[in-house]
Amino acid sequence: MTAKLRIVPLGGLGEIGKNMTVIEYEDEILVIDAGIMFPENDMLGIDTIIPDFAYILDKKEKIKAVLVTHGHEDHIGALPHLMDQIDAPIYATPLTAGLIEVKLRQSKGAQRVEIIQLQAGDVLHIGCFTVEPFHVAHSIPDCVGFGITTPVGLIVHTGDYKFDHTPADGWPPDFAKLAEFSSRDVLALLADSTNADRAGWTSSEMVVKAAFDDVFRQAPGRIIIATFASLISRIQQTADLAQKYGRKLAITGRSMRENTKMARRLGYLEIPDDLIIELEDAIHLPKRDVVIMATGSQGEPSAVMGRLARGRHRGLSIEAGDTVVFSAYPIPGNEETVFRTINQLFQRGANVLYERIAPVHVSGHASQEEMKLMINLVRPSFLIPIHGELRHLKQHAELGKQMGIPADHIAVVENGTPLELDGETLEILPRLPGGYVFVDGASVGEIGWPVVRDRERLSQSGIIFVVVSVNSQKQVVGRPDIISRGFVNPNESGVLFDGVVEAIGRAVEVYANSAGALNEAVEDALGRYLYAETGRRPLVHVVVK
Amino acid sequence: MTAKLRIVPLGGLGEIGKNMTVIEYEDEILVIDAGIMFPENDMLGIDTIIPDFAYILDKKEKIKAVLVTHGHEDHIGALPHLMDQIDAPIYATPLTAGLIEVKLRQSKGAQRVEIIQLQAGDVLHIGCFTVEPFHVAHSIPDCVGFGITTPVGLIVHTGDYKFDHTPADGWPPDFAKLAEFSSRDVLALLADSTNADRAGWTSSEMVVKAAFDDVFRQAPGRIIIATFASLISRIQQTADLAQKYGRKLAITGRSMRENTKMARRLGYLEIPDDLIIELEDAIHLPKRDVVIMATGSQGEPSAVMGRLARGRHRGLSIEAGDTVVFSAYPIPGNEETVFRTINQLFQRGANVLYERIAPVHVSGHASQEEMKLMINLVRPSFLIPIHGELRHLKQHAELGKQMGIPADHIAVVENGTPLELDGETLEILPRLPGGYVFVDGASVGEIGWPVVRDRERLSQSGIIFVVVSVNSQKQVVGRPDIISRGFVNPNESGVLFDGVVEAIGRAVEVYANSAGALNEAVEDALGRYLYAETGRRPLVHVVVK
Repeated sequence: MTAKLRIVPLGGLGEIGKNMTVIEYEDEILVIDAGIMFPENDMLGIDTIIPDFAYILDKKEKIKAVLVTHGHEDHIGALPHLMDQIDAPIYATPLTAGLIEVKLRQSKGAQRVEIIQLQAGDVLHIGCFTVEPFHVAHSIPDCVGFGITTPVGLIVHTGDYKFDHTPADGWPPDFAKLAEFSSRDVLALLADSTNADRAGWTSSEMVVKAAFDDVFRQAPGRIIIATFASLISRIQQTADLAQKYGRKLAITGRSMRENTKMARRLGYLEIPDDLIIELEDAIHLPKRDVVIMATGSQGEPSAVMGRLARGRHRGLSIEAGDTVVFSAYPIPGNEETVFRTINQLFQRGANVLYERIAPVHVSGHASQEEMKLMINLVRPSFLIPIHGELRHLKQHAELGKQMGIPADHIAVVENGTPLELDGETLEILPRLPGGYVFVDGASVGEIGWPVVRDRERLSQSGIIFVVVSVNSQKQVVGRPDIISRGFVNPNESGVLFDGVVEAIGRAVEVYANSAGALNEAVEDALGRYLYAETGRRPLVHVVVK
Repeated sequence: MTAKLRIVPLGGLGEIGKNMTVIEYEDEILVIDAGIMFPENDMLGIDTIIPDFAYILDKKEKIKAVLVTHGHEDHIGALPHLMDQIDAPIYATPLTAGLIEVKLRQSKGAQRVEIIQLQAGDVLHIGCFTVEPFHVAHSIPDCVGFGITTPVGLIVHTGDYKFDHTPADGWPPDFAKLAEFSSRDVLALLADSTNADRAGWTSSEMVVKAAFDDVFRQAPGRIIIATFASLISRIQQTADLAQKYGRKLAITGRSMRENTKMARRLGYLEIPDDLIIELEDAIHLPKRDVVIMATGSQGEPSAVMGRLARGRHRGLSIEAGDTVVFSAYPIPGNEETVFRTINQLFQRGANVLYERIAPVHVSGHASQEEMKLMINLVRPSFLIPIHGELRHLKQHAELGKQMGIPADHIAVVENGTPLELDGETLEILPRLPGGYVFVDGASVGEIGWPVVRDRERLSQSGIIFVVVSVNSQKQVVGRPDIISRGFVNPNESGVLFDGVVEAIGRAVEVYANSAGALNEAVEDALGRYLYAETGRRPLVHVVVK
């Protein structure tokens, strides 16, 4: 019996295979990407989510390399956690390597990581695998996908991509390489599904350039542009227009400043020194002479744009005549916060441009026609949709079927589900236990759903805490201490709490001599009393002293 | 000095003038609509939001009438609260009146409300005002806007509208009436801005009919359609297709059942008795013979679709071969929950259709070209954009300016900002105090931001409670009680809590004899200790006994 090739998407629940993909043949493993997920709105208090590495940590001596497609958080953010626990080199293009270095520097562990630079077009022999990175266009420069020749066949992993013929950095995707792969018979295509529910073709970055040119030509005062800290191409476009229209460029937000510095050093950003000024200096220039780039395009309250919207930025305040550009889509779940930030900026007198009213942002991911082109260029035997929610994978699979790939040659699976290929057939194995890991403050994986569900209940109706002293005759002594948070308005709690004291007295009287724990009996009685009085169900905690 | 006409939009923060508009001339007031707002994601635990009625309650004897444009929650949901406190009749079309009656019946107070039925085309003399309701198309039948002749001039309030030439009920908007208003010189147009950032023209309800027909023709098994309980026209379309394709119709969800019953009784829904069956019976029919309509199109976990997605519905479970249709847009802020529900339904084997992949829903609101048509039909002197977030009002104002309305004839204001018209000029007065009112359980207005902010902190890192006994020598006696919720995993808290006990001991030692309150000193010390240990900042509450 010949050995099989195993492919395991790992990562969060929402974005399938976005965060990490494992390629395994006998005793050798390649890892592709290790990103973070952003918590959903009901994962209260959770900072980030990282993939559950358990599957590969059990066999970590087999890991030969970590291949990274590009430098976005959802592809590199979990590297500090992963590299702390394994001993393999990272392979990445120069810009991606630079972003990884910035990230590793910011974390405490994972200092001694070997990063090997690769270039699109390289041919790398890693164990039994031959890895051929190929250039793709996305919303950050220096992105690659990987052709990986395995003992079972050639597989192609697209990374995040779109077929942009006129990208910001002038480097279109490598169509020839994809076609060349197809001449060698591609066993499986693992392809980005993020925009599988968008018809047509994603707009080129050139569209943004034109929209930005309009902004620069028309803005009567300052221009303030919010985008992702890693959107290097947008920073380049802004710098080019600043030069064209005689404005100075100030960059704010720690991560954006660090990324800019690194990208300029590596030659991915070409910005003359005298174009860039500090924010403090920008404030004293005539308003028409200034453009400011800032973080906070997702409405994050602590980022620059969030603070500007609420009037809480130390150095800068929004004024009538300012033009603010949101050059980003809201990540799903952030819509409300983004639009609130936009409304607040309008309130302060700014003119705000965002994607719905001007093409100041385009997606970095392929739409349906591009997905079809990818399938037809690569002509794989098997299609494995990755990167996207289940609904996107299903839609991507639909496209594959429309193009003649048989249903049993397409695998729509959730993260943690191993696939096996023997060259002829595709087998879907049972899902691995585990799933993903919450990062909350200094803890990684310690906080789970039970704690988050407690937070959910606390967030709905708060908590009431009672300390009641009971003497040896099981009578209440003195007035119980009653403390509530997030439950009632403290100024209006007087009458209610008098009622609580009475309810405690009654409960102690009734339950003092019954079997169970007295504090639990009082908690039950209080919960019922409070629901009847307020229609709300706070957590109730009673300590009997 | 002649008296002025005052217009005050009231309501929530997000949607301006959506929920309530006050029209006031000397001693007479008309109220238009009284709706609820849905809480934003950071208004934790809040059920709904109602407008702050304070402004009109101060002069409630002046209120002559409450005019209602249509029967959606965001226009009628606050009526039970309002009608409890004022003594004026409601004017509404028959279907809207029916929906209001259902609503009033469900609430405890507000039983003795007079509801006067009106029809589009009526001319009503109410105090100094002449009110002319005119038919508009929206996503519920029997919608009107109002032409209101005041002593200062004619104002036109559109309600929610779109210019649908082929609406589901076959009754297009009354273009002639709008043109006729313009022949009488319209002083001000108050117009729906909800879709002001959408170019073009909103699709007709007919598009949905065609998409639904495809679904009925192709679905191999059961069809389950999720939509709003008040979307009467969608229920009619579904019933028509059920009849055409020989399926029986089951309606689930309390509010949808009640609305259907009422609308059938009033003749707004024409469904033969033998078409409708109960869910229990639907389960035993062949799958191809059934269509089920359900609530939960916003992903609400307790509604039918949310329970189906999680496998928690008592009577029904999703199976492979089921076709689920989401015939609704996610309300902003609900995207994540809606898409999660869709992913869960895919997981259970259903084929799920939603607006992005098939036109199974269209907006009920006018897009930009329709807004321009409204302005050109009515030709007002003043434009007052209403219904929408600030960003929508701004965009609507832009359209007005493009069409030649001078900037000082357009008022973009937030809720609670009175406007005054004297026939020649528009004056914007300072914003009124107050804003909106939280409804949480049985409490209306008692819970404010301080309680919600406590919930926010609780939701982020939970709470830790400590009861420490201190003797007369200010020494800790026994081991303190430590209780935490939403902070750490109880199974892993042992070592941490040993550290907490030590930190308490140290703090009591250090602060026992200092001035301030001992519990506060211990709280501060514990907060620092816990942040150093966990990187998280729970609420800390210490009781010293």
